Amino acid sequence: MATATADLKRSVTAAATRPTLDDLDLPLGKRVRLRRLLYGRGMKNGTLLILPIDQGLEHGPIDFFPNPPSQDPDFQWRLALEGNYNAVACHYGLARKYMTKYAGEVPLLLKINGKTTIPSDDEAFSSMTGSVEDAVSLGADAVGYTLYVGSPRQDEDIHQLQIVREDCDKYNMPLVVWSYPRGAAIEEKGGRDSLYAVDYAARVALEMGADIVKLNIPKHGPKDSEQPGDYVGIDYDYGEGARRVVESAGRCLVLFSGGSKLGDEDLMTKARTAMESGATGLIFGRNMWQRPFDDALAMTQSVQDMLQGYGA
Amino acid sequence: MATATADLKRSVTAAATRPTLDDLDLPLGKRVRLRRLLYGRGMKNGTLLILPIDQGLEHGPIDFFPNPPSQDPDFQWRLALEGNYNAVACHYGLARKYMTKYAGEVPLLLKINGKTTIPSDDEAFSSMTGSVEDAVSLGADAVGYTLYVGSPRQDEDIHQLQIVREDCDKYNMPLVVWSYPRGAAIEEKGGRDSLYAVDYAARVALEMGADIVKLNIPKHGPKDSEQPGDYVGIDYDYGEGARRVVESAGRCLVLFSGGSKLGDEDLMTKARTAMESGATGLIFGRNMWQRPFDDALAMTQSVQDMLQGYGA
Amino acid sequence: MATATADLKRSVTAAATRPTLDDLDLPLGKRVRLRRLLYGRGMKNGTLLILPIDQGLEHGPIDFFPNPPSQDPDFQWRLALEGNYNAVACHYGLARKYMTKYAGEVPLLLKINGKTTIPSDDEAFSSMTGSVEDAVSLGADAVGYTLYVGSPRQDEDIHQLQIVREDCDKYNMPLVVWSYPRGAAIEEKGGRDSLYAVDYAARVALEMGADIVKLNIPKHGPKDSEQPGDYVGIDYDYGEGARRVVESAGRCLVLFSGGSKLGDEDLMTKARTAMESGATGLIFGRNMWQRPFDDALAMTQSVQDMLQGYGA
Amino acid sequence: MATATADLKRSVTAAATRPTLDDLDLPLGKRVRLRRLLYGRGMKNGTLLILPIDQGLEHGPIDFFPNPPSQDPDFQWRLALEGNYNAVACHYGLARKYMTKYAGEVPLLLKINGKTTIPSDDEAFSSMTGSVEDAVSLGADAVGYTLYVGSPRQDEDIHQLQIVREDCDKYNMPLVVWSYPRGAAIEEKGGRDSLYAVDYAARVALEMGADIVKLNIPKHGPKDSEQPGDYVGIDYDYGEGARRVVESAGRCLVLFSGGSKLGDEDLMTKARTAMESGATGLIFGRNMWQRPFDDALAMTQSVQDMLQGYGA
Amino acid sequence: MATATADLKRSVTAAATRPTLDDLDLPLGKRVRLRRLLYGRGMKNGTLLILPIDQGLEHGPIDFFPNPPSQDPDFQWRLALEGNYNAVACHYGLARKYMTKYAGEVPLLLKINGKTTIPSDDEAFSSMTGSVEDAVSLGADAVGYTLYVGSPRQDEDIHQLQIVREDCDKYNMPLVVWSYPRGAAIEEKGGRDSLYAVDYAARVALEMGADIVKLNIPKHGPKDSEQPGDYVGIDYDYGEGARRVVESAGRCLVLFSGGSKLGDEDLMTKARTAMESGATGLIFGRNMWQRPFDDALAMTQSVQDMLQGYGA
Repeated sequence: MATATADLKRSVTAAATRPTLDDLDLPLGKRVRLRRLLYGRGMKNGTLLILPIDQGLEHGPIDFFPNPPSQDPDFQWRLALEGNYNAVACHYGLARKYMTKYAGEVPLLLKINGKTTIPSDDEAFSSMTGSVEDAVSLGADAVGYTLYVGSPRQDEDIHQLQIVREDCDKYNMPLVVWSYPRGAAIEEKGGRDSLYAVDYAARVALEMGADIVKLNIPKHGPKDSEQPGDYVGIDYDYGEGARRVVESAGRCLVLFSGGSKLGDEDLMTKARTAMESGATGLIFGRNMWQRPFDDALAMTQSVQDMLQGYGA
Repeated sequence: MATATADLKRSVTAAATRPTLDDLDLPLGKRVRLRRLLYGRGMKNGTLLILPIDQGLEHGPIDFFPNPPSQDPDFQWRLALEGNYNAVACHYGLARKYMTKYAGEVPLLLKINGKTTIPSDDEAFSSMTGSVEDAVSLGADAVGYTLYVGSPRQDEDIHQLQIVREDCDKYNMPLVVWSYPRGAAIEEKGGRDSLYAVDYAARVALEMGADIVKLNIPKHGPKDSEQPGDYVGIDYDYGEGARRVVESAGRCLVLFSGGSKLGDEDLMTKARTAMESGATGLIFGRNMWQRPFDDALAMTQSVQDMLQGYGA
Repeated sequence: MATATADLKRSVTAAATRPTLDDLDLPLGKRVRLRRLLYGRGMKNGTLLILPIDQGLEHGPIDFFPNPPSQDPDFQWRLALEGNYNAVACHYGLARKYMTKYAGEVPLLLKINGKTTIPSDDEAFSSMTGSVEDAVSLGADAVGYTLYVGSPRQDEDIHQLQIVREDCDKYNMPLVVWSYPRGAAIEEKGGRDSLYAVDYAARVALEMGADIVKLNIPKHGPKDSEQPGDYVGIDYDYGEGARRVVESAGRCLVLFSGGSKLGDEDLMTKARTAMESGATGLIFGRNMWQRPFDDALAMTQSVQDMLQGYGA
Repeated sequence: MATATADLKRSVTAAATRPTLDDLDLPLGKRVRLRRLLYGRGMKNGTLLILPIDQGLEHGPIDFFPNPPSQDPDFQWRLALEGNYNAVACHYGLARKYMTKYAGEVPLLLKINGKTTIPSDDEAFSSMTGSVEDAVSLGADAVGYTLYVGSPRQDEDIHQLQIVREDCDKYNMPLVVWSYPRGAAIEEKGGRDSLYAVDYAARVALEMGADIVKLNIPKHGPKDSEQPGDYVGIDYDYGEGARRVVESAGRCLVLFSGGSKLGDEDLMTKARTAMESGATGLIFGRNMWQRPFDDALAMTQSVQDMLQGYGA
Repeated sequence: MATATADLKRSVTAAATRPTLDDLDLPLGKRVRLRRLLYGRGMKNGTLLILPIDQGLEHGPIDFFPNPPSQDPDFQWRLALEGNYNAVACHYGLARKYMTKYAGEVPLLLKINGKTTIPSDDEAFSSMTGSVEDAVSLGADAVGYTLYVGSPRQDEDIHQLQIVREDCDKYNMPLVVWSYPRGAAIEEKGGRDSLYAVDYAARVALEMGADIVKLNIPKHGPKDSEQPGDYVGIDYDYGEGARRVVESAGRCLVLFSGGSKLGDEDLMTKARTAMESGATGLIFGRNMWQRPFDDALAMTQSVQDMLQGYGA
């Protein structure tokens, strides 16, 4: 067992390499759309910086309190334009009603399932808020789907994702999976941010056919010892955890998320570590738009300066 | 009753014979695909050795710890090519992203339902991760479906399988059923590995229209006395248990699985007994790829040398 | 109340008459198929003797213990051929894989829903294992559907039956309903075999559009007094119970089942009483094939000699 | 050239053998229905005697003039019942309105395309008068389709037949093709009854997927020398011509038609020669029902006495 | 003009290179099936030798006169097996009824449109005789479609091909186009075998989305001067003509056909020239099966010995 853990540790510390578009063996239409996202906007070097604005649905307007102007979705759309983000990720309504001015300039990653935070997360499940056909008809370059890995309702979730994936195949729409461990069962096995949980979530997205997977970077926590088997006792730092789950995601491109707002230095460290660990890019929302427009632009610029160094 | 048990004992020890393709009365397209699997790869003698790589979804990346390179799905695809396996069994993502190099050489058995191990198995149910049409469009030679016999949700499962079976009939895609006793009810009737449970699972697959059924070999356990009726008190050894369930599977070809990793000698004994008992082949995953590549090739070779003796 | 009970008693003892095909006002295709079943095989006199082999799914291989050769479905198919049964009733797999030799000689009654006996019967529900289109494509002459009258899940069941009935109408496939009182609620109202329960089940099949209904003959039991209203206190013997439910089935032809294995004399008495009471025929499985082949043929012959006297 | 013709002559005179049901490699439902037609009615020896009543549509009521009672379709249905024909072949209306009395006794071969004789045959094409689904819902055991081989409209005809054939595959309904050379082009290449024409028609039915093909026996005519290539100069008698086209039909069962009314002795000679040449049976209409009922029954009996000798 | 002709001449004489599978940018399922055809049978070196048996429909049984045993389709299927052809090309009927013995060994290229030669070719059009779904359900590895380039009915033809191509995309079934100049218009522009005609046909197949195109090798003829523009006056020999049209076919693999029977030496020359000119393979029917079985095997062997030298 000691050996197994040692091997795993080695796997955790190995240098991670980002898959290229060629590695992904993409059908033509997906190649067109992904190439546009990766090389047609932002740094144009194969990295991604994506601005999500689905927090109004997922968390409620409470997220806009730190920066009231951010409540107007045009704030984020404008930020995405002026900040040269690779795409905005949002639900149908924010695309349909706010995107016109930016159409053809800021690409759209249409989020097609979601939920509010009001009921408990014990049986988490996000129902469809849009469709792959909506994405086609809005001119989006990808769709986003949230899968709650390990939720008691994962049976419905896996099946719903299968349908979405088949629709993506039909239209060659790139599929971005927000792969989130969630629900009562995972809380009893180390919790949603444990290495066990995130590692598993990365693999599930790969096996289900995601093109890009959005993950949180795993971190140590008080329930670490409740993780199954050899996960207990694995020592890893921030970068090692990130590298490990990038490896588990295999031929999926990985986006790491920012989560709730951090200090600027922490954010930059997080961002750099993520890229260092083999991520293709970042999806930063609250860390960007929970500050005044010009600050947000400046912070965006800092992140992009860093991304400049990770072209491929 | 004594007589019934004696008769049954006789049935258990009777010589088992493997059905031939002609026994199966196959429609043309199924015959094409099964003949290709059975006689076009591997030993080319009607036996099967199949390499499954669905454990990342079913158990999580923890299964790759004993041999970290196995985390890269290309490890298994390459093993299947160089080791001359009859097919790889995996979900959509691992076919879509990793099979290109092996296309047309290593046949694909597309697994089309699954789940993670995170929630409890009390109400086990595997939802669809792909479709028979996916299998056609990926050029697969069979689909795999997991049926949890006896689960409280078997009503959904049986119906879901019926739809899959009808799609298989439409395209003449061979149907492989992973027939697994599972759920709270079976645990109260002797448990998932009891003769009662596995015997029942074999028969259900037959009545539902499987072409091939994957079974575990039944074994004695502490809950044997909780089995219904005459199953209690049947004495059987490993080979007799295997033979019995091969008989119950009737005109379904039987694959026995390896389960978790065994010692090499035990594995070879298990494999030989399975074939001796009328199985058509073996589906060995962890026992193969949870070791370094060259060891895995060598072990594969040993099993195939043995399979050589069971041609038909 | 006394009068009502007396009337009911009269109804119970009245001579029952079997509906003719003309009474059923059949559309053309149903007439073709039912005439073939009733007059083209067996006694060719409008009676039915049907051999069911769905017990492997419904009860498990345990039902084959008393006569191990019966585990091979060919045993029953051969018995049906040599014993000149009117039809075999089985699920898709046993038709698809075992019927070829008997095609066009032994008619098929395709059972299209079912379940295993592993989980509790409290919320009994049988999901689809096949479809009316399967029946057409297998060349079947009827489909069989199990309705669990009074089960907590009867809402799903009634709806599922409606869909089947509409498909039967589309293809003019005769519909045979196994109408079984089942579930926790009926156990609190006299039990599944009470006159109340079976009488109700007969009527439900009629109202739902069955062409033939399969019933158990009601019998007195310890929970008789828990039956609703005037059912309590009705005295009836075996034949009177049978007659009563034949009347309730109205313009559905009635099949009585044999249930678990009886002594030969009891079986013949049961069979004769059933026919005397207006049944169209018998569906005898375990009572036939849970004995050696030649005994089974002989017993079949005895029953048919009796059926000879009930032509119409 | 002399050699080729000599070889052909040899092929023409070789003994013809009738394909068995096993030769046809039938799916289960087709096997059920064909076995019923071939072994469940008539001589029950694998021969066919079929009574067509589509002449009212194809030729008009003029065909009933020689025997006015034959104008009532019940005349033919009754003849089919009392004469023990293997099936009646007719369009939807004559089945829907006249078959009830005979349902389940006289099998139905539903003719599903047709035309009147009023316009010229130069661009012959028969449009659909029914569907394979009609056949299922009427309880028919086969469908009949008229293909006009070589007609200027054969493009529409071939495509229409393809759709019918696919529907037949869906429901496993046997497909009988009336394969008739027709149209201006064939009249310039030896005419519709030439060996060239009938031989070609037999092959086309085979390649299109017919289970049974109805042919006329080829005969010498004044335009023989206009046949293409080596067909000119082939000398063959009645039986040799029949044998030749039976060979060309390969694994299609062949029915020869009677055509317009002949003398009794000629008819018997024709019938015997047809069977001697490898036909599976006869489809005799006008030769049967253009005479009084009792004469028709007697003639039927004579033909069947002869068919008795060709069982298989 | 002189320069243009010179350039063209240069293009005609340039070395032709065969596209590889990678050049074709195939979706996964097409890659599986084409790799199987190109590397799983025959020389297993990326060359193709295909045996067509659609002449019975296209030309009539007259094509079998030179070798009467060839009239039985089993002759060709057996030749394909024993001669190790890469595939048989035939219509539905000859696959459905004759392929079972060879299923899974001899790949099937299902021809899905066709016509007879009886009506004039002035408005040539081949209607559907099968579908891409038929090909899937028969387990075929490709479909074949005949496009009559330049026919007055090419509008219908092009549209019909588009539907087929889309179905091929859905199931990833490789599409082989028999691209034949035909009809009154082409006869006025140099004729069906002119460089103009064949060159045009090659390009049309490429633009319509064929994976493989079957062409005749262009040849000089009396109507050469009626070709449009600069085609008049191009001098080319057999090999130069072949090379020219291979170039025009671009990223379609090219099959050259044998046409009517040649002397053995001529055939070998033709075959070698074809391969030398960049063809992927040959489709030889009458040149093979219009001779006794053993001669046919020997000739097959000679061609394959030659193909051995063109692996890639």
